[in-house]
Amino acid sequence: MSALRFEVQATCAQTGARAGLIHTAHGTIETPVFMPVGTQGTVKALTPRDLQDDLDAKIILGNTYHLFLRPGHERIERVGGLHRFMSWPRAILTDSGGFQVFSLDTLRKVTDEGVLFRSHLNGDPHFFSPESTVDVQLALGSDIMMVLDECLAYPVTHTTALESMHRTIRWARAGYAHYLRREKGLHCALFPIVQGSMYPDLRRACAEALMELDAPGYAIGGLSVGEPRELSQDMAALTAPLLPADRPRYVMGVGMPDELPRYVAHGVDMMDCVLPSRNARNGYLFTSRGKVVIKHAQYIEDKTPLDPECLCYTCRTFSKAYLRHLFQAGEILFSTLATLHNVRYYLDIMRRIRHAILLGKYPEFLTSLQSAAPVEAGG
Amino acid sequence: MSALRFEVQATCAQTGARAGLIHTAHGTIETPVFMPVGTQGTVKALTPRDLQDDLDAKIILGNTYHLFLRPGHERIERVGGLHRFMSWPRAILTDSGGFQVFSLDTLRKVTDEGVLFRSHLNGDPHFFSPESTVDVQLALGSDIMMVLDECLAYPVTHTTALESMHRTIRWARAGYAHYLRREKGLHCALFPIVQGSMYPDLRRACAEALMELDAPGYAIGGLSVGEPRELSQDMAALTAPLLPADRPRYVMGVGMPDELPRYVAHGVDMMDCVLPSRNARNGYLFTSRGKVVIKHAQYIEDKTPLDPECLCYTCRTFSKAYLRHLFQAGEILFSTLATLHNVRYYLDIMRRIRHAILLGKYPEFLTSLQSAAPVEAGG
Repeated sequence: MSALRFEVQATCAQTGARAGLIHTAHGTIETPVFMPVGTQGTVKALTPRDLQDDLDAKIILGNTYHLFLRPGHERIERVGGLHRFMSWPRAILTDSGGFQVFSLDTLRKVTDEGVLFRSHLNGDPHFFSPESTVDVQLALGSDIMMVLDECLAYPVTHTTALESMHRTIRWARAGYAHYLRREKGLHCALFPIVQGSMYPDLRRACAEALMELDAPGYAIGGLSVGEPRELSQDMAALTAPLLPADRPRYVMGVGMPDELPRYVAHGVDMMDCVLPSRNARNGYLFTSRGKVVIKHAQYIEDKTPLDPECLCYTCRTFSKAYLRHLFQAGEILFSTLATLHNVRYYLDIMRRIRHAILLGKYPEFLTSLQSAAPVEAGG
Repeated sequence: MSALRFEVQATCAQTGARAGLIHTAHGTIETPVFMPVGTQGTVKALTPRDLQDDLDAKIILGNTYHLFLRPGHERIERVGGLHRFMSWPRAILTDSGGFQVFSLDTLRKVTDEGVLFRSHLNGDPHFFSPESTVDVQLALGSDIMMVLDECLAYPVTHTTALESMHRTIRWARAGYAHYLRREKGLHCALFPIVQGSMYPDLRRACAEALMELDAPGYAIGGLSVGEPRELSQDMAALTAPLLPADRPRYVMGVGMPDELPRYVAHGVDMMDCVLPSRNARNGYLFTSRGKVVIKHAQYIEDKTPLDPECLCYTCRTFSKAYLRHLFQAGEILFSTLATLHNVRYYLDIMRRIRHAILLGKYPEFLTSLQSAAPVEAGG
């Protein structure tokens, strides 16, 4: 497990929330951590400088599917790997590409060997196998790679979920075996992914089977696929404690700001979501006073900052009136300033969570959230 | 003339090129200067921080027409003026809106009182008079305002140009008189604009008539309207020496990188153009080795910086391969990185020009440009 070392610094006796450090070849990540999503080799609208100096992000996520199609993992490898390509010196986690492929709906065909799909860019046929997605991610040079898994929509029958879970387990074994043959000295960790739809027995069986791989970390996948949000929480709460306490646990693709502390309370260490950046570009901004829909007329002459409690560049520098103007005028600068703020908002939540756990005050922290104004005002 | 003070530091005896300082209420501008264009209250894709820390721009340009329509000059005034609105603490020059209105073609009607036009956003009718455009610019709080002028297309007959020139002079007088009534203590300078199409006699007559206003600076307008580029140079070369040597001279809307030193050699102190930023967003990048069209396949795996002689953030940090990928993928970050570079390229040319003038070496500088690789490789 030299590729990655996890150090638990504090565990909340009451909730199971943990604070820790993940040591990678590209720096140390303080957990619990939220990972900004950098789909196509860029966290949309932000420079690596913004991510480091303003946001102090320690790890970002890249999407294997997108990078595989454009510019291509072999090209990225030839120009020195993804870190150098995007000039990001800190850690990178890549997904397996499976989630995107399974979102293609009509364009794919699943067999036991893998998944055949057509590029959303030009319709070209491609095939992802458990082995090939490991190869793609090794070419990218990511610090944390994910196994190919089958990600189901919601709802599915128990029979479908069972069959799919077995395929996910077979793929994880095949991918992991391939990884062990290839990984020597490359300092890339590979995480298996627990599936099982919303069925507790399948989640348990899947976690148990994947444990045999003795991986340096485990993910919980198949959430945020259309199920009620309470069900996502229930599945994470059920699955996380089944995974080894001395390895990081990663819930993929979540969540809303007020959900982050709840996942952490289940013993989750890592999360990612496009929500802060995508909502930012669409003018939906998260603040300590609730959600701000910046196009609303009430902000036309609002001289106050977006979030008076936020210390990001956007909130330190600009008024809501200006941000609204940029949004209405379709200016590129809006995307940059809004993304800077929303991602900072997420990272600041995680910093407060971590701080509370280290202080041994996480139960009090959770209580304070319930009694205070909502972290996220819905709508 | 307390609104603006111009200090000539050095004049090239051979060419007439000058190096100087323009002192404004929002800082001192080193001339010759190229002003990045910030049409809608933002230099597209750049933060004010980029403009200050990376580019060290001392003055930017705002477009009165666009800001008048959206969000509206009265709104900007109520939230504290354009500087505060866009969080730009340095100098701002605004045009009169005339150029944009005259670009509207079918949507306008010119009378002696001003110009009636319809908004390109929603078709609403509006009227700009020589007085009202001064009022709009005073509301914006710009440091250097421009009078309303009639900007003709190319070519026009001498008769048309003569009639239009007289209108421009009448408008300049009306606008200037209104300005003198209103300006007291506002620290906003107003520049008249020499018109006259491509007719030397009209340029001379217009310059002479506008001199009566004893303005703190003068502009040469009506260039870059479709005429051959040599003709633009001829008109600037003819007109600049007619303007007072102790006031800044501003040629509006120019030019290509290799044209900048030539305008300066005519005794021009200020220029602006959308070219560096617009070309950047379209993937046309200026470099010391010639123009780079980033979409070209030759850059797919090019690990070298865009311009090895450039010290901008983009060139210090990223490869052509990465920039090409961002462009092909339609990523917002491309616009930011490309604009940062192209604007820096323009500002660095101006810094080299100024340096050569101060050293008394401007003729040698011009000669070195002709013998070296072209500043701009055309195509």
